[in-house]
Amino acid sequence: MSNQRTEIASLGEFGLIDRLTKNNEIKQSSTILSIGDDAAVIDHGGMQTVISTDLLIEGIHFDLSYTPLKHLGYKSVVVNISDIYAMNATPTQIVLSIAISNKFSVEALDEFYEGVYAACEKYNVDLVGGDTTTSQRGFVISVTAIGEVAQNKFVKRDGAKPNDLICVSGDLGAAFLGLTILERERKIFEQTGAQPDLENQTYIVGRMLKPEARKDVVDYFAEHNIMPTSMMDISDGLSSELLHICKQSNVGCVLHEEKIPFNEDMKDFAYKLELDPTACALSGGEDYELLFTISQADYEKINENNGLSVIGYITEASEGKNIITRGGNKHELVAQGWNHLK
Amino acid sequence: MSNQRTEIASLGEFGLIDRLTKNNEIKQSSTILSIGDDAAVIDHGGMQTVISTDLLIEGIHFDLSYTPLKHLGYKSVVVNISDIYAMNATPTQIVLSIAISNKFSVEALDEFYEGVYAACEKYNVDLVGGDTTTSQRGFVISVTAIGEVAQNKFVKRDGAKPNDLICVSGDLGAAFLGLTILERERKIFEQTGAQPDLENQTYIVGRMLKPEARKDVVDYFAEHNIMPTSMMDISDGLSSELLHICKQSNVGCVLHEEKIPFNEDMKDFAYKLELDPTACALSGGEDYELLFTISQADYEKINENNGLSVIGYITEASEGKNIITRGGNKHELVAQGWNHLK
Repeated sequence: MSNQRTEIASLGEFGLIDRLTKNNEIKQSSTILSIGDDAAVIDHGGMQTVISTDLLIEGIHFDLSYTPLKHLGYKSVVVNISDIYAMNATPTQIVLSIAISNKFSVEALDEFYEGVYAACEKYNVDLVGGDTTTSQRGFVISVTAIGEVAQNKFVKRDGAKPNDLICVSGDLGAAFLGLTILERERKIFEQTGAQPDLENQTYIVGRMLKPEARKDVVDYFAEHNIMPTSMMDISDGLSSELLHICKQSNVGCVLHEEKIPFNEDMKDFAYKLELDPTACALSGGEDYELLFTISQADYEKINENNGLSVIGYITEASEGKNIITRGGNKHELVAQGWNHLK
Repeated sequence: MSNQRTEIASLGEFGLIDRLTKNNEIKQSSTILSIGDDAAVIDHGGMQTVISTDLLIEGIHFDLSYTPLKHLGYKSVVVNISDIYAMNATPTQIVLSIAISNKFSVEALDEFYEGVYAACEKYNVDLVGGDTTTSQRGFVISVTAIGEVAQNKFVKRDGAKPNDLICVSGDLGAAFLGLTILERERKIFEQTGAQPDLENQTYIVGRMLKPEARKDVVDYFAEHNIMPTSMMDISDGLSSELLHICKQSNVGCVLHEEKIPFNEDMKDFAYKLELDPTACALSGGEDYELLFTISQADYEKINENNGLSVIGYITEASEGKNIITRGGNKHELVAQGWNHLK
């Protein structure tokens, strides 16, 4: 962070691009040509290319009043490459475009790009292109990630079969609680000017502001010769994502509430806020964990990994999509994920 | 165009995506997996993958008061795949993301996508993914194009050598005049309510609203075994682009004003508006023609194509970047292209 303020207009478009990309390092041998031409060139040899894209809009997807720009840069990359991992593929390159209003200084953009490069470094991904332009108002971020996968080893959403086990990585619902506390403190600050009190909830706040993509899970699949029958990442909440898998695979499901993994701090804090941890997991979203199904033959391989949980099983479509509560009741699973269009 | 107005919220996010993509046809055998999963999958076999991206913001890159949505959809695709052709590559897939405010109806988006699909059809490109979200204000479009090129047949900006010939496709400056007349009529409409009078300038208005990418030129290179030494597309004006090639190739240039190709209607109309056609070509931009250099050995092959013009030659860097005017005077070439950041 710096207190200096350099106007973006003083650098000009190409001066700005030079500044933002001068420390950009190429890590992938498949990156033949990177930033600075009409397009980038990538050599995927005998691999298949996987491509995914996200558009992030200030005020809709992020709030700069409590999001440090470095974290925003990091998260912009992570949420996109999370989609590549969700295909059982390895991200290799990204292109990143931004539109900025003149309220941003060059130093603010430097911070954003610090986060972008930190994510590229961590996930071994090359930034190979983009577009830099102005907006009349608000910050717009577009990320497209390219990945590679061995011939026909990609995993879609439509391959779940009856009796397959439903699994998730990590724990769920914490990002939503992180958002809840950040939003609460923002409102208190706006009304009273009081400084934010995050109650030392570093885990849940970190889950919201600096999520990670589950490269380790995809690596684990490769090492243990596991091929999930379907997979997607959890950006909109567990129920919404599981319903996607059921719809695209034309199957039903039984989810066991008691099997949904929670972080202890998250659970305690949810009760403190009088929120149901299960509801946070089902409808919260932004956890960026992997939701996948496996055939029962792979159960032992999943079970011996403490970071993975079996939370239910797939049924025939005619049996519906259901959740069994802790009390043993059966309810229909409904999607209540964030609907950005409402 | 339809007078019906369906609110986007009435479809929901996935209903909207289903509607916008239901007529999406896959044309490329390399498209293994398209819209509907976390990512698309592309098989480029022994080819190299080329990738390019653009971010278009309402009020900065387009004005909906005079841009039909269908044309906007078409142009959004064309300007992006123009970058792929500028690499001497063939576009094969695009991903398209949009952010929309609730001022748009579903019918308005249908029109936009009609244009997108028309461009995909014309250029034989598959739409394989994207992101659909809301904005608080304004329409945001992000397009990433993927193309393929035979091993090391891509053409960069840094290969121009002294004595190479500087060439352009088509004619220049008309898009800028089209923008000028559209902006003039918008202002008159805002002040007086008078209906736009485009003076039957269909050519120049069409160049602005519905540009085409020069697939035919890249095809001509392949058929005649021409490998340009450098190439880029003209989005920001001839002088700005030629200076890019000179800088990246570390060379100088001599441009002959009298060789710059103009459309006759464009020239007449420029004089009517008391604008210099040469200035329109040098600084206007948005022509999406190809600017390229070739070795002198290829002169005959270029000369026999009426759609291509030799407009100057490359020099040593020490000789500077110059234009020879019709009157025989030599001036330094300066970039006055649209600078979106000023």
